[in-house]
Amino acid sequence: MKTDHQLQVAIKDSILFRDSSDAFISKIAAKGSMTHYKKGKILFVHEDQAKRFFLVKNGWVKLFRETLDGEQAVVDMVTSGQTFGEAALFQDNIYTYSAEAIEASDIISIPLSLLQFEIDNNPKFVKTLLFYNASIRQLKDKEIEHRSLQNASQRIGCFMLRLVDQEKLGKTNIHLPYDKMFVAAKLGMKPETFSRALKRLKKDTKIRVKGATIEIDNLQQLSDYACRACSFEFPCADLKKD
Amino acid sequence: MKTDHQLQVAIKDSILFRDSSDAFISKIAAKGSMTHYKKGKILFVHEDQAKRFFLVKNGWVKLFRETLDGEQAVVDMVTSGQTFGEAALFQDNIYTYSAEAIEASDIISIPLSLLQFEIDNNPKFVKTLLFYNASIRQLKDKEIEHRSLQNASQRIGCFMLRLVDQEKLGKTNIHLPYDKMFVAAKLGMKPETFSRALKRLKKDTKIRVKGATIEIDNLQQLSDYACRACSFEFPCADLKKD
Repeated sequence: MKTDHQLQVAIKDSILFRDSSDAFISKIAAKGSMTHYKKGKILFVHEDQAKRFFLVKNGWVKLFRETLDGEQAVVDMVTSGQTFGEAALFQDNIYTYSAEAIEASDIISIPLSLLQFEIDNNPKFVKTLLFYNASIRQLKDKEIEHRSLQNASQRIGCFMLRLVDQEKLGKTNIHLPYDKMFVAAKLGMKPETFSRALKRLKKDTKIRVKGATIEIDNLQQLSDYACRACSFEFPCADLKKD
Repeated sequence: MKTDHQLQVAIKDSILFRDSSDAFISKIAAKGSMTHYKKGKILFVHEDQAKRFFLVKNGWVKLFRETLDGEQAVVDMVTSGQTFGEAALFQDNIYTYSAEAIEASDIISIPLSLLQFEIDNNPKFVKTLLFYNASIRQLKDKEIEHRSLQNASQRIGCFMLRLVDQEKLGKTNIHLPYDKMFVAAKLGMKPETFSRALKRLKKDTKIRVKGATIEIDNLQQLSDYACRACSFEFPCADLKKD
């Protein structure tokens, strides 16, 4: 399944490695391997010993934990270009959540030891990592803020906006997980709230939902709708490619 | 107002610098200065140019932003031992929120250039920073999780538990901001929800609220109550001192 070129392109496209040198990317690609996971496949379980981290080439992965009460907490839903499991390096090499492919997904896994080596020997990469961490921190702040200030329809709109190229204001399509209840769980909504809020969002912004695909004719209209209850500017600074 | 020894103790007590060498702490103390701020004093405004970061010696500071809709988003409420403003180093030296002392507070300010110097020259500090970032990231994940899974009383209990020495299971007191509506805003609750939830929490866990002081007779009882709807173990790993 693995072709070095395919891996290099996917790695170069990822948020964590988009500023890395070609030499470093070749090294990661050489040590990485791509696997196709079926829907429902568990990649690792919370508190497992961590040896590798992961980069989604395509598909959707749910990161989650369970409480003593037996409830499931969805930590995140990750898709193309996003990594997961790398934070284990700073958590005693233990995964801090479980990971499940919720759709058929192609995922690249890379040894954590390679990341550790770069941290120990590549000051430029360490700086990238510090900036990356700062952007994640701000992203989490934003998410916490949105849970207070955005209504449910705005939160769904915001989730969609973060999946598109925000520089292109024209027509665009988004691929969501087929079962939208995963998105509801990620956004901390009950299924019935999510369904009602999605209906409202379609009415107010004219987006169209066709199975797993969302068709957006006017990105500006969607951002006007969702971002007025956000304290950050659109386009989202943490998603900018330069 | 400034005494080097006072500053050194406060810096050594902070989460960010508790693992730092005495030499580094002396350096920070030498360049830092302590100021007493009155209640209501604005320290800086969102998008101000950032030259210094801050460490709370005692008191409470609210970090916040405003949305286009004119709503205020409380990013965080910080108190003794916590820093703020340091993330500006990774955000083009711009503060990503406003800061207001919501009680009379003693606050140490330190040049960001000192932090930048250490990042460029002290690999040990960079590693501390990476671990610190990972713990903040997990903390934010936890907060997002709690907004989905904990009820309002559990969330208030959790907020209190994070302010005490969790290793001591006996009697303890906590100092909250005098105006508890700041806590409500930090937890993303409407004032009336907060009041009802606090009443419920007092009834269920026998804590006593006396003005700004919370008296807890049995920490275990409070943690049993709040932490059953959390996927992390008590005591909170990110607060451990070793």
